[in-house]
Amino acid sequence: MERIEHHASFGGRQEVWQHASATLGCAMRLGVYLPPAALAGQACPVLYWLSGLTCTEQNFITKAGVQAHAARHQIIVVAPDTSPRGEAVANDPGYELGQGAGFYVNATQAPWAPHFRMEDYVVHELPALVEAHWPTTGRRGIFGHSMGGHGALTLALRYPGRYASVSAFAPIVAPSQVPWGQKALAAYLGPDTQAWAAHDAVALVASATERLPLLVDQGEADEFLASQLRPELLQAACAQAGHPLTLRLHPGYDHSYYFIASFMADHVAHHAQALIATAATKA
Amino acid sequence: MERIEHHASFGGRQEVWQHASATLGCAMRLGVYLPPAALAGQACPVLYWLSGLTCTEQNFITKAGVQAHAARHQIIVVAPDTSPRGEAVANDPGYELGQGAGFYVNATQAPWAPHFRMEDYVVHELPALVEAHWPTTGRRGIFGHSMGGHGALTLALRYPGRYASVSAFAPIVAPSQVPWGQKALAAYLGPDTQAWAAHDAVALVASATERLPLLVDQGEADEFLASQLRPELLQAACAQAGHPLTLRLHPGYDHSYYFIASFMADHVAHHAQALIATAATKA
Repeated sequence: MERIEHHASFGGRQEVWQHASATLGCAMRLGVYLPPAALAGQACPVLYWLSGLTCTEQNFITKAGVQAHAARHQIIVVAPDTSPRGEAVANDPGYELGQGAGFYVNATQAPWAPHFRMEDYVVHELPALVEAHWPTTGRRGIFGHSMGGHGALTLALRYPGRYASVSAFAPIVAPSQVPWGQKALAAYLGPDTQAWAAHDAVALVASATERLPLLVDQGEADEFLASQLRPELLQAACAQAGHPLTLRLHPGYDHSYYFIASFMADHVAHHAQALIATAATKA
Repeated sequence: MERIEHHASFGGRQEVWQHASATLGCAMRLGVYLPPAALAGQACPVLYWLSGLTCTEQNFITKAGVQAHAARHQIIVVAPDTSPRGEAVANDPGYELGQGAGFYVNATQAPWAPHFRMEDYVVHELPALVEAHWPTTGRRGIFGHSMGGHGALTLALRYPGRYASVSAFAPIVAPSQVPWGQKALAAYLGPDTQAWAAHDAVALVASATERLPLLVDQGEADEFLASQLRPELLQAACAQAGHPLTLRLHPGYDHSYYFIASFMADHVAHHAQALIATAATKA
């Protein structure tokens, strides 16, 4: 692990690290916000952010305004890149596949399978790395935007007990049913749509054994709302399964980081309630 | 005026506009944040932000986190580009001169004089444009970063009564005495250093007729602190002149937008106190 950026921020520190990922077979960068308590050596919970299509680790740390809220609640926030990277890594000319578009799955198909293992990276390698390097309580939350909202919802649903809290901004809730998801899942997982269902939040909610409450914010002026996001499918699936969902539709808001920043305080507070209240109960 | 971006943000709207500037002789872009009250047609004060070297109108509006605070205080925030732009406009290979580096002066020297009139643009054309298009109280504040902190301090000092409040993040306080300023002022204003003094905050404080309080934040880990910024010169000049200055030095903070965002709430509150309290007194 090599630290390549560090900036004082809201009494804590925003850092960027690079490491050689064994899971992905390439160098990976991640943003790490350390709140004041972490800098003082106190154990903090960790909230993982998964970004959307085309993003690196930079978009979230520079535009979302998370640091003020993470400092207030004393939560470490970790934001990885969105895919493996580099000349040796397969790519696609489209922005919705390949580098910048890992979709948080383990690819089984050529040419993607050797490097595109973002599920294993986010669920296993990244927390091990983080928890070995910084003082953490061991409690984890996960959230994200768009493709990263899909990642947060599906990973929380696929790994019961691993995340104490989950939320999403404008997530792809049903990748099996929309063009972005269909292209990516077909490429990474092959044509068998049964394999896709294991990475589709709407499908996963139907069979979830843990009823982790979902917080989802969605802008009603989002240019991808009707074509790619379709939150009504998640609403129907949660209603049918009895899965707790808070879906907030915001008139006028689009798909940008202006939308994300506007509701960031609420999301961090949502995670803090689960990550810190439970830690206090345990203590 | 053409609106080229609009994003809902904290109950208000972040917009980007483009217009043909008569002062600068080129197309110019500006960010305009309209708080909820402005969207509802209520008159609001206007706070002008001046950015630093290399910035366009985008850096501040995407990274500084100003919108949350502007929404809370119901202040319009206007962020112009940092120089005239375009193929017809003179430029320099260095980042500290030419496009992206207007230094908020009216150039008198070739090849800069035809377009580089950022002082007139910021002080006259921009407020006229803004006040004609949106509901404003007519009260104005000004703030900025680095080269833009220099711009904010010098324009507030050069135009007594025009700005009700001023503040700066890591400003160039004495351009006549540091390399960035010396290169720019020599190019734009010529070799006569008497002409430079009229655009040097440290020199202007000595002869200021209005004692507008200055709020300045400076990171102690700023890579340009000793070479280009030198806040101690402003501190000494204010002490000698009896000019009110609040200079806050922050250990660990650098020159980046992470620093700016960390203290943005304080700056907007500083301006709100002057812009809104006085407006209320007048009403």
